[in-house]
Amino acid sequence: MRKNYLLTPGPTPLPPQVCEAMARPIIHHRTPQFQAVLKEATEGLKYVYQTKGDVFILASSGTGAMEAAVVNLLSGGDTAITIQGGKFGERWTEICKSYGINTEIIDVEWGKAVLPGEIERRLKANPKIKAVFTTLCETSTGVVNDIAAIGKVVKDTFAALVVDAISGLGAIDLQTDAWFCDVVVSGSQKGLMLPPGLGFISVSQKAWKLIEGSRCPKYYFDLKVAKKALDKTDTPFTPVITLIIALCESLKMIKQDGLDNIFLRHKKMADATRAAMKAIGLDLFASTVASDVVTAVKVPQGIDGEKMVKTMRDTYGVIIAGGQAELKGKVFRIAHMGFIEEFDIIVGISCLEKVLAQMGYKFKLGAGVKAAEEVFLKG
Amino acid sequence: MRKNYLLTPGPTPLPPQVCEAMARPIIHHRTPQFQAVLKEATEGLKYVYQTKGDVFILASSGTGAMEAAVVNLLSGGDTAITIQGGKFGERWTEICKSYGINTEIIDVEWGKAVLPGEIERRLKANPKIKAVFTTLCETSTGVVNDIAAIGKVVKDTFAALVVDAISGLGAIDLQTDAWFCDVVVSGSQKGLMLPPGLGFISVSQKAWKLIEGSRCPKYYFDLKVAKKALDKTDTPFTPVITLIIALCESLKMIKQDGLDNIFLRHKKMADATRAAMKAIGLDLFASTVASDVVTAVKVPQGIDGEKMVKTMRDTYGVIIAGGQAELKGKVFRIAHMGFIEEFDIIVGISCLEKVLAQMGYKFKLGAGVKAAEEVFLKG
Repeated sequence: MRKNYLLTPGPTPLPPQVCEAMARPIIHHRTPQFQAVLKEATEGLKYVYQTKGDVFILASSGTGAMEAAVVNLLSGGDTAITIQGGKFGERWTEICKSYGINTEIIDVEWGKAVLPGEIERRLKANPKIKAVFTTLCETSTGVVNDIAAIGKVVKDTFAALVVDAISGLGAIDLQTDAWFCDVVVSGSQKGLMLPPGLGFISVSQKAWKLIEGSRCPKYYFDLKVAKKALDKTDTPFTPVITLIIALCESLKMIKQDGLDNIFLRHKKMADATRAAMKAIGLDLFASTVASDVVTAVKVPQGIDGEKMVKTMRDTYGVIIAGGQAELKGKVFRIAHMGFIEEFDIIVGISCLEKVLAQMGYKFKLGAGVKAAEEVFLKG
Repeated sequence: MRKNYLLTPGPTPLPPQVCEAMARPIIHHRTPQFQAVLKEATEGLKYVYQTKGDVFILASSGTGAMEAAVVNLLSGGDTAITIQGGKFGERWTEICKSYGINTEIIDVEWGKAVLPGEIERRLKANPKIKAVFTTLCETSTGVVNDIAAIGKVVKDTFAALVVDAISGLGAIDLQTDAWFCDVVVSGSQKGLMLPPGLGFISVSQKAWKLIEGSRCPKYYFDLKVAKKALDKTDTPFTPVITLIIALCESLKMIKQDGLDNIFLRHKKMADATRAAMKAIGLDLFASTVASDVVTAVKVPQGIDGEKMVKTMRDTYGVIIAGGQAELKGKVFRIAHMGFIEEFDIIVGISCLEKVLAQMGYKFKLGAGVKAAEEVFLKG
């Protein structure tokens, strides 16, 4: 007997309703039956995105949706701002470079959020900048950026504000329209509680104007073609039928709970996790605003971080994430996002305590769980 | 009560083993557990592809894999042959045009196969041609092309032979290595008996050389990056975990049956369907070699083809496909591919007879089913 507890920042655990939907017989995608599904999914996504604009469902991972943002908005030779404060911010730079887009890179120390004032300064210095590529939650560092403040800085310029909300959408607040986000990309395997395989992308009126002028080559990710199809409740190419049907199930759950309650649940879990880490004597990696979807924690001195994560997973079935790229072995990350609730967090902290104790780390056993319980008890 | 029978050329029905696998709790993709899955799936695909070369699993539909073929092999300004004998052949031309590739289009009358001699003539006339884009089974017309003969014509030239085997792989014979196919693309929702959402692409040694010289911009579909990841049993971006786990199930079934038996089953179902159409007095659309995965049939005079397909679907739950693009209303298409066997074909023919009779078409009721039974009885 071996029971698994998934506490990773994507994929997140699947609700039973989603598992059940995935197991259903397949339906054909060029039917009124699937059109009803596509309509329901698209409308539901607009609720989660907090937008009245267009939202498209792509047959790709989140990175495909990021590429769609770049190739639809820009042309080779254009200039865009990218913000490198973690692995996923760097991905924007990489995609831009692949398509011949010049990047004005804002280097941010890993663990810190970008300063909106710095974006403002760069935009003023170079009025040719066509897009600002940002990250809502930098999953690699556990830092959340202040998209609302960035939106205020970008909205009156020529540039489009593009947000990678792959980690975070449906889990923490992101007001696409009210915060002036022109393009928001996301994926299915995080706050939306589905397996990976769907990319999402929203497009504002300002973004559509940029799209009209884009000369980047594209076919599979061409949003103008996607728009024509969606206007007829259709998709340009075969959609990931099963995942879209499952999406309707998770959207139903999200609507039933309500976004505000969901954001509150995530905040509570993040608070509890952070309190627990402090009680165990561990330091957060995020030195500015820590995100409410994943907590990155510094591996204490004398502890082999990779071995710790591996033992939790292979011996006890509690799956958290290690560090990525330059943070490998230096941090571990506990997700509190999607279909995860307070007692899952208790399990994660308890297992962490067990393995740390076994590895000889000195702390008061039970202190982490107690600190988390105190946060949860306050309600 | 309403029971559905899916007889469409993608998606095809799902085996219960696949449905069960789709419903399982999700696992994380950066784990030894998923690495074992990825290895098993990749090895199984090589069996189905009949190749010892590389095969990659992409998080995309089949069209994404087609785009991957174009952007990895070629550079803007290159010239390639495309063959337009149906909607999917035309897609190669469209993708090439999107990336600034010049196309030497071989126009083939819809319903006919391309003549390998014509490809040979074009290759000789223009030695700069870098790729020949072909289609194994043109799903829109029900025609199968002679890829083995085309392979002989292309192999000693500079050009890469690229095959769209989205419809057909795992259902009819395609010998990637023995037929000198350099790049073969496919998708999950046809012969491989899965929901849509995975693209597959094989790469020969000859193709890798072309890939080295490609200057088309790319990121998400970059096969050199995919190769580096796969060498470490990994994927560059989040894979469609659930579908890859389900793929292992369908590959197990395919290996258990054996490719030769599977090809025989498809041939038998196609023969039976064609015999049934003839017995009902209907003509096939394919005027050369009709494919063994889907049969396209001309709608008889006086019958509203779209209404016929709609009635079969909405009144009786038997879902076949209508005509696409210029064939809309002029043909209907019955798939006999994937998890479909003889008695499913009997159901399809019986329902077709019922609706044709109701619509006033004159024929001997039961003649189609009888003709099919005769073919199946011969074994």
